[in-house]
Amino acid sequence: MNPPALHIAPGDTVRVDNGGSDSKNVRRTAGGDPQTGPFYIDSVYTGDMLVVHIVKLTLNRDTAISNDALASRALNRDLAVATRDNRKQILWHLDCDRMVGWPADRSGHLAAFEVPLRPMLGCIGTAPDPGPPAPAAFDNGNWGGNMGFNEIGTGTTVYLPVSVPGALLYLGDAHALQADGELNGTALETSMDVEFSVDVIPKKSLKTPRVETAMYIAAIGFDGTVDGALQAATDSMADWLAKDYDLNPSEIGQVLGASAEYRIAEIADRTLV
Amino acid sequence: MNPPALHIAPGDTVRVDNGGSDSKNVRRTAGGDPQTGPFYIDSVYTGDMLVVHIVKLTLNRDTAISNDALASRALNRDLAVATRDNRKQILWHLDCDRMVGWPADRSGHLAAFEVPLRPMLGCIGTAPDPGPPAPAAFDNGNWGGNMGFNEIGTGTTVYLPVSVPGALLYLGDAHALQADGELNGTALETSMDVEFSVDVIPKKSLKTPRVETAMYIAAIGFDGTVDGALQAATDSMADWLAKDYDLNPSEIGQVLGASAEYRIAEIADRTLV
Amino acid sequence: MNPPALHIAPGDTVRVDNGGSDSKNVRRTAGGDPQTGPFYIDSVYTGDMLVVHIVKLTLNRDTAISNDALASRALNRDLAVATRDNRKQILWHLDCDRMVGWPADRSGHLAAFEVPLRPMLGCIGTAPDPGPPAPAAFDNGNWGGNMGFNEIGTGTTVYLPVSVPGALLYLGDAHALQADGELNGTALETSMDVEFSVDVIPKKSLKTPRVETAMYIAAIGFDGTVDGALQAATDSMADWLAKDYDLNPSEIGQVLGASAEYRIAEIADRTLV
Amino acid sequence: MNPPALHIAPGDTVRVDNGGSDSKNVRRTAGGDPQTGPFYIDSVYTGDMLVVHIVKLTLNRDTAISNDALASRALNRDLAVATRDNRKQILWHLDCDRMVGWPADRSGHLAAFEVPLRPMLGCIGTAPDPGPPAPAAFDNGNWGGNMGFNEIGTGTTVYLPVSVPGALLYLGDAHALQADGELNGTALETSMDVEFSVDVIPKKSLKTPRVETAMYIAAIGFDGTVDGALQAATDSMADWLAKDYDLNPSEIGQVLGASAEYRIAEIADRTLV
Repeated sequence: MNPPALHIAPGDTVRVDNGGSDSKNVRRTAGGDPQTGPFYIDSVYTGDMLVVHIVKLTLNRDTAISNDALASRALNRDLAVATRDNRKQILWHLDCDRMVGWPADRSGHLAAFEVPLRPMLGCIGTAPDPGPPAPAAFDNGNWGGNMGFNEIGTGTTVYLPVSVPGALLYLGDAHALQADGELNGTALETSMDVEFSVDVIPKKSLKTPRVETAMYIAAIGFDGTVDGALQAATDSMADWLAKDYDLNPSEIGQVLGASAEYRIAEIADRTLV
Repeated sequence: MNPPALHIAPGDTVRVDNGGSDSKNVRRTAGGDPQTGPFYIDSVYTGDMLVVHIVKLTLNRDTAISNDALASRALNRDLAVATRDNRKQILWHLDCDRMVGWPADRSGHLAAFEVPLRPMLGCIGTAPDPGPPAPAAFDNGNWGGNMGFNEIGTGTTVYLPVSVPGALLYLGDAHALQADGELNGTALETSMDVEFSVDVIPKKSLKTPRVETAMYIAAIGFDGTVDGALQAATDSMADWLAKDYDLNPSEIGQVLGASAEYRIAEIADRTLV
Repeated sequence: MNPPALHIAPGDTVRVDNGGSDSKNVRRTAGGDPQTGPFYIDSVYTGDMLVVHIVKLTLNRDTAISNDALASRALNRDLAVATRDNRKQILWHLDCDRMVGWPADRSGHLAAFEVPLRPMLGCIGTAPDPGPPAPAAFDNGNWGGNMGFNEIGTGTTVYLPVSVPGALLYLGDAHALQADGELNGTALETSMDVEFSVDVIPKKSLKTPRVETAMYIAAIGFDGTVDGALQAATDSMADWLAKDYDLNPSEIGQVLGASAEYRIAEIADRTLV
Repeated sequence: MNPPALHIAPGDTVRVDNGGSDSKNVRRTAGGDPQTGPFYIDSVYTGDMLVVHIVKLTLNRDTAISNDALASRALNRDLAVATRDNRKQILWHLDCDRMVGWPADRSGHLAAFEVPLRPMLGCIGTAPDPGPPAPAAFDNGNWGGNMGFNEIGTGTTVYLPVSVPGALLYLGDAHALQADGELNGTALETSMDVEFSVDVIPKKSLKTPRVETAMYIAAIGFDGTVDGALQAATDSMADWLAKDYDLNPSEIGQVLGASAEYRIAEIADRTLV
């Protein structure tokens, strides 16, 4: 397969979705979650912790694309058989005033079906360790990447490791809404204006990406299974509580036991750990 | 091991926690999540669906018991090593006016640590199919049982299968609060006054227990892994959407993809499926 | 469901298969893997290790029953869809002279299909700890039970924990042959004459059942997942190497790294751990 | 990290192990499983099936390197704690006449410990689909790569997909012996003379790599869990039985149920699927 020719003229501002299409559904870049960046950030060095403030995410088109299939990891025998013919692309209409969306061809029992929009970035990451080759845009791992975590929206702060000088931050994969699991393999894929700022905490490491919202501190765990990801996230949160909150192992047990919430960000993409 | 002698005199009203102790911490029954019931419910037959309305849960003592250990399923190598000496029982003080709790011996960095109370029933179930022997009180499965789902509180409706005449409903395992996962193996274990009513939907089956709150419809999935439980819950929810909401497979894919939320109820008890 | 009436007259010797049928396919007992025992063994006490020598297994009929379905745990999406109509009982002919078997209605591409017979006991166990109720005959756990391990045949020694006075040994579930995984949910189910002897090692505990053959020492691991069972088996083997072979952790790592073989006994039955 | 400078002079024949060291333990190339290739194979096109005959593997040094740690995926809580200090490199002596090996510093209870050598290739693969970036040498997936399957030795035939013109075959990671699981993260790492020939079956696809030995036909399954890999391997084998042996779903169920053997190749490397 040859990559499609690019259709971006000099001076163009082009906002593409995960398939590389602009707001008129014209293919402008290759698909597969095209990213913005990498951004080389001055005075940031290997071993630092990069701090990314998501100042504002603004939807900039009135449609999104998804589909009706369910990701293999969500399927037991019965559900695999029941949904074996699901393979339809779904066009969603986005009402950015009321911040709700609905399938353009909804009818029958779904005639009144609409969902609240909650814009988020599916992808945000730095360059991983130099050893392995560059991950694909649908990969995730301890450097971040395609994490598909629906708390990464306006007002959220994301902490990422810095493995190369300048960090090489990249981001993309705009979702108007993504439910837990990213069960269709895609969310409501669209484009977005992204306003963000960066900061750095020098010489500070972290086990996995950290996320702070108005409500939560969250540690992300990656693994080929939900069970393993749960362990990795719990370990990373325990590490955070030990290093930044000075809790001892017994206190960590008490805090986690009484306060932990688990969210299954996504089970659709590839994890490299 | 002989079970301890019971200390209940005729006419006593005794409210015990999961260890069988009363509010003065005197052991009154055997531990291991003693249950209330079974209740034989008139005019309920095999193949019906039992409806249990949790009208009101009221805490009735000012302490709870937990511990600081973390359940094996939450531990990767690093966290297993870090918490290898955790084995302390934790006494929690419950302030039932402000509805908050805190470890009685909190100090240092946890000196101001308190958590909001949210009473719930750890166990609610019917008798399973007659074939296998009775499950233990710490078991769960498609009949319900020790599900440890923190949405089962005041105002919630639980739907359970009926596998024997009269359903043989039982309930217990009062938690003042349980975070996701029941990570300590126990939650904030205490006792509770439980007000509930029952209803029946004749000749109606369900794949796994269903739960309705003011915010959610929830299908519970059981498996030895979180990954398998996720599949079972998704299958049960799809079955519910098909049978009660008349959605076809494509519509089910669209609704789940845009709306699903996953909660990890608990990873501490034994699942029989 | 009422259990079927028994058809055993006084003085009868009846040899039944896992469905409770005799060699003429007449139902004589309830199905679901009927067991022989429990045997109360004199001078064996709680905390001892029971040693069972499988002296000889002898097939005593010329048929076995299996089916063509695949256990859910073996199925990904594609295979679930491909085999969704598999639900046929398969009658196998057993040639006990040549010790081979074949499906009675083999034809077409399977016209010459035959498999070597290798008799084994699907079930062997002691009574588990008194706390939980008796496991079903299709359950397995650290007390043994329905382990479905195809190395448990003539000449094998099985080591089991003793949790109650007399051990209460039971055994059954005769398989003329069982491939790894017991993929059909059943193996080649038949009946067998079993000759065994018992021994005891006083006051000696073990983490999980141990098996010795002419070729192997094997530790069994139980879990709801193969991944967890692999960990439990590795841990039990490491414990064995430490306690009975006096190896230190580094030596255990060297021996396991250079010598371990893993066998997936079965993924069809229920594990209680 | 800068890659180490290469120490290979023109005309040199250098045989390196997985760490890039030659038989005198001098570092000659970068480590991390250096590979030989890629080989562009004439008249082989995308969509063909590549056939690689491993004609002969010959050990060419008298040492191998391993270590005493256990891979995280093999560790439950108890075993993680028990082996938390394991981190020693182990030098193995290889006796290529008797074809046995032993740890150079064996003593005490391991004084007589030796293991039979069984040379194998840890890595063999073609270039994957052009979309994603090149996998690392420690990655595996449906194109092959670091499969760590100890049946890939002298006399074995490996079938691989062709995703780019010329296939771009590569191989490496010589193991004098590898037990199931590659539990130390490494096997007995050494170097080897490899004699192989290639063939092609035009326009023929396969789900995952296939392996044929004198005893077995084997389909490899890849996943982040053993449970998922078991499903993928079973699916690939069923696909093979359907397409090349013309079996219908019922016959596939009968053959797998009576004949399947599962081997856990390795749980140490990274799977990209």
